[in-house]
Amino acid sequence: MTDWKEIREEDAPISPELKLPEVSELLELIDGKRISEFRLAALDIMAPDMAAIIEEAPEERRVLLYRLLPKGKAAEVFIEMSVETQQQLISSFTDRELSETLGELYMDDTVDIIEEMPALVVKRIIKNSSPENRSTINKLLRYPGDSAGSIMTTEYVRLSPDMTVEEALRVIKRVAIDKETIYTCYVTDRERRLLGLVTARALMLSDRETLLSDIMQDSVIFATTTEHREDVANKFNKYGFIALPVVDNELRLVGIVTVDDAMDVMREETEEDFQKMAAMIPTETEYLRTPSYKLFLSRIPWLLLLMISATFSSAILSFFEASLIPALVLFVPMLMDTGGNSGSQASVTAIRGLSTGEIALKDVFKVLKKEIIVGVLCGLSLGAVAFGKVLLVDRLIMNNPAVTLTVAAAVSVSLAFTIITAKIIGSTLPLLAKRLGLDPAVMASPFITTIVDAIGLILYFVISANVFGLVI
Amino acid sequence: MTDWKEIREEDAPISPELKLPEVSELLELIDGKRISEFRLAALDIMAPDMAAIIEEAPEERRVLLYRLLPKGKAAEVFIEMSVETQQQLISSFTDRELSETLGELYMDDTVDIIEEMPALVVKRIIKNSSPENRSTINKLLRYPGDSAGSIMTTEYVRLSPDMTVEEALRVIKRVAIDKETIYTCYVTDRERRLLGLVTARALMLSDRETLLSDIMQDSVIFATTTEHREDVANKFNKYGFIALPVVDNELRLVGIVTVDDAMDVMREETEEDFQKMAAMIPTETEYLRTPSYKLFLSRIPWLLLLMISATFSSAILSFFEASLIPALVLFVPMLMDTGGNSGSQASVTAIRGLSTGEIALKDVFKVLKKEIIVGVLCGLSLGAVAFGKVLLVDRLIMNNPAVTLTVAAAVSVSLAFTIITAKIIGSTLPLLAKRLGLDPAVMASPFITTIVDAIGLILYFVISANVFGLVI
Repeated sequence: MTDWKEIREEDAPISPELKLPEVSELLELIDGKRISEFRLAALDIMAPDMAAIIEEAPEERRVLLYRLLPKGKAAEVFIEMSVETQQQLISSFTDRELSETLGELYMDDTVDIIEEMPALVVKRIIKNSSPENRSTINKLLRYPGDSAGSIMTTEYVRLSPDMTVEEALRVIKRVAIDKETIYTCYVTDRERRLLGLVTARALMLSDRETLLSDIMQDSVIFATTTEHREDVANKFNKYGFIALPVVDNELRLVGIVTVDDAMDVMREETEEDFQKMAAMIPTETEYLRTPSYKLFLSRIPWLLLLMISATFSSAILSFFEASLIPALVLFVPMLMDTGGNSGSQASVTAIRGLSTGEIALKDVFKVLKKEIIVGVLCGLSLGAVAFGKVLLVDRLIMNNPAVTLTVAAAVSVSLAFTIITAKIIGSTLPLLAKRLGLDPAVMASPFITTIVDAIGLILYFVISANVFGLVI
Repeated sequence: MTDWKEIREEDAPISPELKLPEVSELLELIDGKRISEFRLAALDIMAPDMAAIIEEAPEERRVLLYRLLPKGKAAEVFIEMSVETQQQLISSFTDRELSETLGELYMDDTVDIIEEMPALVVKRIIKNSSPENRSTINKLLRYPGDSAGSIMTTEYVRLSPDMTVEEALRVIKRVAIDKETIYTCYVTDRERRLLGLVTARALMLSDRETLLSDIMQDSVIFATTTEHREDVANKFNKYGFIALPVVDNELRLVGIVTVDDAMDVMREETEEDFQKMAAMIPTETEYLRTPSYKLFLSRIPWLLLLMISATFSSAILSFFEASLIPALVLFVPMLMDTGGNSGSQASVTAIRGLSTGEIALKDVFKVLKKEIIVGVLCGLSLGAVAFGKVLLVDRLIMNNPAVTLTVAAAVSVSLAFTIITAKIIGSTLPLLAKRLGLDPAVMASPFITTIVDAIGLILYFVISANVFGLVI
């Protein structure tokens, strides 16, 4: 077999991604009783990669691989595992092992795991937590799933304003082992009310006898426990923090959110938006790991609803079909597609603007004005092109005498109005949804398309009949 | 007027978002010659907020506001300004002021600014940079815009493995002022080849005489200068780093990327994807700040292209129209919409999977298998529902005798096949695009819809004519 350690040393440093060992190589080390070599190799593998490697192993060998990991590494690897493997590992743990593992985890990770586990496992986890952790877990579990409270951790460094830098460094040295970050430390009064923050940078660069009150930043951006987690992530993005304090109603410090968690939130929220905007019910698991029936269940509700609502289009078609000239039908797909595309351009812009905070509800008239201008510009130019295209391609090239000048005019005028309507609907519906406390992302392409289809068809047939007299 | 400072002190700490001063209040302070009050207030305002406040001011007063900012703050605020305001400020700077401001910026920010400025301004910036910075700028400008090289900065802390913790801390104290982060320091040999990293955490917690070689992590994840910036951001997301080293072909350390820049990249890349997937050419400026004609220009090309390609649908309709029974036309919108929605569900899933690294090209058969299963499940269930719906709603309720049992059967069978086809096309086209070195995001809903429309219509008419004999 390949001696992984040997390869590794050829050119230090290595990027684990370039030369990660196969799970079979690690299992061979273990089977050959070369445990210390296994541990040495494991030390050099980052936790997310190690978790992926272990999950590649046959189910019955995963527990063994996990148990042989070096002490400090095991918990890190544990939190990177899939829910299924975590559950498998927990059920193999003795109570002592479980409480040891729990002891190594940060509170936010513990709570994340609990939220995914079945009730029996949760019971066991809570039973095997220390009394102090148990009460913290219970508190954290009570915050709504999309709030700052639900993503924060309680392991931060708290200092007093009357400490010197030297004292602060001593405190940090003592408590650091349990803290998720020591790079931003929070200064509070005795009632834990947030007074300011001190960065590790300031501590490292200041003289040892300086008072914290002299070097602390006393204007601090914070989040409240009930704030939406997406707003929290936006603050990280705006200000470039590596941690953000979370306070309760009395401005008491209750936790912190770290930048890695904020990045996860950003990713989860955008993936959720992508899924909603493509008419899917968001799933949190990785695509390749999601069973097909679950994908089916996440996709079918919207498909069904949208299919049923297309009945309106059929009804409109059927209402007009008998009395209008048949050539008009040829341009229904073009009208529908262009209307739908115009609408989704506007709606995606509005939805994303709301998500990132670039657009606020109060901007509704600015948005509307912009979209009407853009709609008129798009409508006029596409209408003109469509007029030419219909005459040239559909009449001349495809040699269809039923496509008259009047038909071309009706198509291009209807198209222009449909585009303008689509822009208005596409941009305002997400804002309306937000105003009503609904999720703007649902007002995305598929939904807008269905509405624009119906309106576009009515515009098309009414304009064709009443303005251009294209009746039979 | 309101004394902002007074309000502020009522309840420290404050979150600037809660009580930011209006620009008029700041201007009043300045007009009343209360400059030190203005500076005190400015100190408490985070740079991105201060930039926003200054941009609210009338154009002719912005330069004044900027010039009166406290020394250390000015450069921070400068990089948060819009390109237009930056340009306005630069043109008001003397050469000395310009080179002072440039001296305060990190290299990655300088390069970002240069990339947005007109040639004349760039010349002036380069002329007023220190010779050393000038050569760094030129190097950084040569990396492709979407590479790790283009987002990295050269201001990192470099240490040697034979230093003690105490020596390292001394070095850090000396050089920190110019460094973008001191929380991750890089250990290199004399040729700058990366040997490992030491975190500030490790330094703060270790004894002063410990050698760096004993506490450094020697297995380091890094990026290469030419790596795509989205892959760099994905590494931050996966591993939770606050900085990532960037090396050249010889593994020599040339720069670092910090987590705030990685978050910016993540946001920019996802917003670009959202825009491309909604058939828009990505714009980087904020929506409300983008002039309508620019929005128009970013939206019209795809609308136009997609409108022209809808000609296929018209051609198909026109080819079959004369020979098929008219009632079939009623269900064209439903078929088109459902096919389009099914396809975009699959394509958005594939596009995002490729972006986040969840799906790789080698997974093409796994993806295909999943989507065929999901497609069959969706096709069967929607086909069945459509059959009932057509008979119940379109035949009975809307009392249309032309909608026969055979029509309902033709619609539901075609629908099922269209959905399966849509899932296959939607999931494979993005992978194909990636394989060909194109951007998968362009293979999104609008494009897929246009293709699925044409295929769906052909399926529908061929099945109706040849299987169900619905000819006139």
